[in-house]
Amino acid sequence: MKPPIAFWFDFISPFGYLASLRIDELAARHGRTVDWRPLLLGVTVLKVMGLPPVPQTPLKGDHAARQIARYLRRHGLALGRDPAAAPMNPLPAARLLAWLRANAPEHARPMARAVFDAHWARGRAMDDAAALRDEALRAGVPAAVVDAGLADPTAAALLRAEVNAAIAAGAFGSPFFIVDGEPFFGVDNLELLDEWLARGGW
Amino acid sequence: MKPPIAFWFDFISPFGYLASLRIDELAARHGRTVDWRPLLLGVTVLKVMGLPPVPQTPLKGDHAARQIARYLRRHGLALGRDPAAAPMNPLPAARLLAWLRANAPEHARPMARAVFDAHWARGRAMDDAAALRDEALRAGVPAAVVDAGLADPTAAALLRAEVNAAIAAGAFGSPFFIVDGEPFFGVDNLELLDEWLARGGW
Repeated sequence: MKPPIAFWFDFISPFGYLASLRIDELAARHGRTVDWRPLLLGVTVLKVMGLPPVPQTPLKGDHAARQIARYLRRHGLALGRDPAAAPMNPLPAARLLAWLRANAPEHARPMARAVFDAHWARGRAMDDAAALRDEALRAGVPAAVVDAGLADPTAAALLRAEVNAAIAAGAFGSPFFIVDGEPFFGVDNLELLDEWLARGGW
Repeated sequence: MKPPIAFWFDFISPFGYLASLRIDELAARHGRTVDWRPLLLGVTVLKVMGLPPVPQTPLKGDHAARQIARYLRRHGLALGRDPAAAPMNPLPAARLLAWLRANAPEHARPMARAVFDAHWARGRAMDDAAALRDEALRAGVPAAVVDAGLADPTAAALLRAEVNAAIAAGAFGSPFFIVDGEPFFGVDNLELLDEWLARGGW
């Protein structure tokens, strides 16, 4: 059994959402599974790298908006939310994901999928317990599991550990993939990641 | 006749060099020519965007080094210079290129090609008039043209105009391509640019 592909993302990242729509299918074609892992751009990019958010960076913000629009046209997709709008608070969702990954890992991916879809396809704010509970239940996560995750104060520490693991692995953006120690950053690198898996590296 | 592809780059950029090895052939396959244009990362990235140089950015510097190494292995290439070393002063070469583009455009590409190859394939510092003259002559640029370009004080203003044109077009990194108004950033986006040209956009 080959090790899973680490898929790091922040729920506030439209590029992370777009990658989330493809990574499982891509990995499966190569006999791989995917480990969906939360990081926080507010820690990696803003604090550790010392950079401003992309939308507020001159030239880069406009370029990212054009990249998103071009990607959506290429793949026949639409967003239910303006990627230039102020981001939601990702902490509650990221903490719940970190908790599920540690305590009920079979529910981690469905919950993350539900948050991404509700937020980016339907434009729902996913920054409080009520919205997370509602969407997780709709995605089939048992109520007892959701409630335990939302109530457990260790979730914050589990998320901090995830963010530290991302940094230790060299992951900083969203999406950021690591396969067998090799880093791939950005949705535009999925084709390269695909080639890497097909060739077994180079 | 379709308009040329704008190829913006900084001579200090290893990614710009790697793109320079492929862009003419790629463009020609689609009936396009390439306009080789100098920009300065010290202006676009450092001053306009307010960001630190990539090699000094935590996490990103290490990632760029890995990207370069992986790209070199994928394409069977080697560099004659350590991309992590302190960059040369790109101003004399960039000024000469801006001057040639305005005054003797048929010699702009050969001169840029010569600078890139001398610097990145052979590790030669290309930051003074003697080195530029030597390599330009070897590349077939007439001595009278090289000397006129090196001596003309308007070259600095021509370079400033180029950098301002890059910023006005939304170009900030190296390499940065603009085709029919559409931006493509980075050597990893050459495949996407290729697809864009093949499909006539989307």
